[in-house]
Formats: sequence, structure tokens, C-alpha cells
Amino acid sequence: MDRLKKRIKADGVAIGTEILKVDSFLNHQIDVELFEAIGGEFRRRFSDVAGKVDKIVTVEASGIAVACFVASYFGYPPVVFAKKAKPNTMTDDSYSAEVRSFTKGTVSNIMIAKKFLNEGEGVLIIDDFLAHGLAAQGLASLVKQAGGKVLGVGIVIEKSFQGGGEKLREAGLRVESLAVVEKIEDGNIIFA
Amino acid sequence: MDRLKKRIKADGVAIGTEILKVDSFLNHQIDVELFEAIGGEFRRRFSDVAGKVDKIVTVEASGIAVACFVASYFGYPPVVFAKKAKPNTMTDDSYSAEVRSFTKGTVSNIMIAKKFLNEGEGVLIIDDFLAHGLAAQGLASLVKQAGGKVLGVGIVIEKSFQGGGEKLREAGLRVESLAVVEKIEDGNIIFA
Repeated sequence: MDRLKKRIKADGVAIGTEILKVDSFLNHQIDVELFEAIGGEFRRRFSDVAGKVDKIVTVEASGIAVACFVASYFGYPPVVFAKKAKPNTMTDDSYSAEVRSFTKGTVSNIMIAKKFLNEGEGVLIIDDFLAHGLAAQGLASLVKQAGGKVLGVGIVIEKSFQGGGEKLREAGLRVESLAVVEKIEDGNIIFA
Repeated sequence: MDRLKKRIKADGVAIGTEILKVDSFLNHQIDVELFEAIGGEFRRRFSDVAGKVDKIVTVEASGIAVACFVASYFGYPPVVFAKKAKPNTMTDDSYSAEVRSFTKGTVSNIMIAKKFLNEGEGVLIIDDFLAHGLAAQGLASLVKQAGGKVLGVGIVIEKSFQGGGEKLREAGLRVESLAVVEKIEDGNIIFA
């Protein structure tokens, strides 16, 4: 997606060899017009399964807005976002999966109430970043625990050098990434 | 907003006298079509200041999607969401405010990087719930620290019996709530 790559080049900040900061338009400040375009691009990429999308699943926080705009292009299926901690209002039975965050240096559980995932449902997983792939793996695990079918994983920015995309594809998941960063070096962002 | 109130009546779950669960359409599973309508309703309520909205500010996680749809009705100003914990990629100077969550029983800091709030900016604050008003107060504090002007606070569901709305209005803030719950009693949700 050229518009996205141009924006990453213009406003992304490379830190060391691992971190790409895109907080000015993606995960702290949000460019909503860009998010609408991202929704449309996912619709194009997943057009072959468009009739089978019963639900869109993501994880809080940054994935939520992307997932909502994707939903608006797929006939408004419900968006369900996994929660990272269990608030005391979440008393229902939940599916859960352990997810490590390399960025935050923490291990946490993500969970979705059982009533929001159903057997036989077609699910698109959407997230803003794919690095080591642990969040997406966790989301796929939640869907599978419920007996749903993961139609694909839609990622805004994949950092391919951290291996998550490869791992998901080897596990048989279809991954569509709108921008694939192959390398971060000397402050430069190099796309695949 | 009738459509919202009907939905709360139909799918909201009253627990005790304090808690209203709306996780089937608002803060765990999201009805994106309803969120679009909510965006349009905020546009109507704040039409008198529409030309002055430079930015929309909310707090992760549930507020993000609402804020994005509001932005789409106000000519796409940037949406900035306050973060609840400081990830190690957030190295810039931040404005911060302490917020207590009665639901989760925790005290946390919310913060926004200084570069995303500017002096003289007109800001709409958007959030899904207004209970004791501490999140909205915290957001207003961040905007004021930066020298911005809070044009108004847009809330999807206000629980007026918890006093947050009164507190904000007494502090001189304009609060527009799309559904005001006056009382939760014997499993019933009573609107103002």
C-alpha cells in the first residue's frame, strides 16, 4: 500500500534495529482518513473471503480503530477486541491465551468472553503491528478454542525481520500485511 | 439518542446498583454501525463548535473507536488517545494525570506525548462512559497542561447517579451525553 509506505517513510522514526515508532499516525495519534483507506485496502486483499466474514477480532488498544474501519467495508460484522487484563465486570467465562510483549517486556493474558466467539464462525484477525507474531498467534488461538475459522490475518505493518509473519504462515495462516519492513538500519526504514 | 437507549434497554445488563454492562455492543464487542450513528449524533450536538475542532482526545481502549467515528464527522482532525501505561517506546516528554478506576479498583496515570497537544488548540474529549468523571477530568487536565481549549466532553453513556457529570459541569465543562442513566435498580436501567 503505497500511501501507507510513504507515510511511514515520512513520519516513522527508526530506533536502533528493532523499533519503528509510528505514533504520529497509527498508535498514539491516529490519522482517521488513512485508517479508512486501510480498511478499504483490506477489503480488496480479502475480497475472496468477503462473504464469509462473520466477525473481526483484534486486541486492545491500537488494533481497535483499524478493525472498526475494516468492518465498515465488510458489511459491518461485529468487532470483538481481546482484553489484556480482566476487569471485575468481566465475569463471564472467557477464552484466554498468553502473550508476551517484546516492546513492553511483559507477559500478559489476552481474553475474549466465550459468548462473543462461536463455533463455525469465519473470523478476520486484524492488528496494527506484526513483529514476533505472538499477539496474532494468541488471537488465532482464541478463535480456534471457540471452534471458529481464521480466514486470514490482516496487519498494517509487518516487521518481517522479527520472524512473526514467517511463523504464522508456516502454521498455515494467511497473512496480508499492507507494509512489510525488512530492515531498520542507521535510522532508515527498508521495505521488502 | 433513542437508538442507543433502545439498545441499552435490549442488551445492557444491570449488575447491582452501580454497574451497567454493555459489552455486547460497546466495550468488548463493538457494533460499528451504531458507532457511526454515534459519531453523527455528536456532530449534531457539537455543530456550533464544529469549525473549531482541531483535535479529538480520548483514552484507551474503548474510547478509541468512538473517537475515530466522531472525527470522520468533523473533517478528520487527528484523534489522540491517552495511554494508561508508559511503554518503553514512548520516550518523549508527556503530559500526565492520575486517574482512579472504580471498575478495576486501580489508580493509574494516563499520558499523552507533549508533541501531540498544542497551545491554543480546540479539543473535543470523547469517551464511552462517564461515571465518577475521573477519566474525563484527567483528559481535560492533559489538554489544559498543553494550553489547549476543551470545547466539550462527549460521552456515550453517563451514569448520572455517580456524580461525574455534575462535577465536570460545575468545573465549567460542557458535557453532552447521548444516554443518561439515572438509576440502576432491581436489574432495571432507568434513564433520566
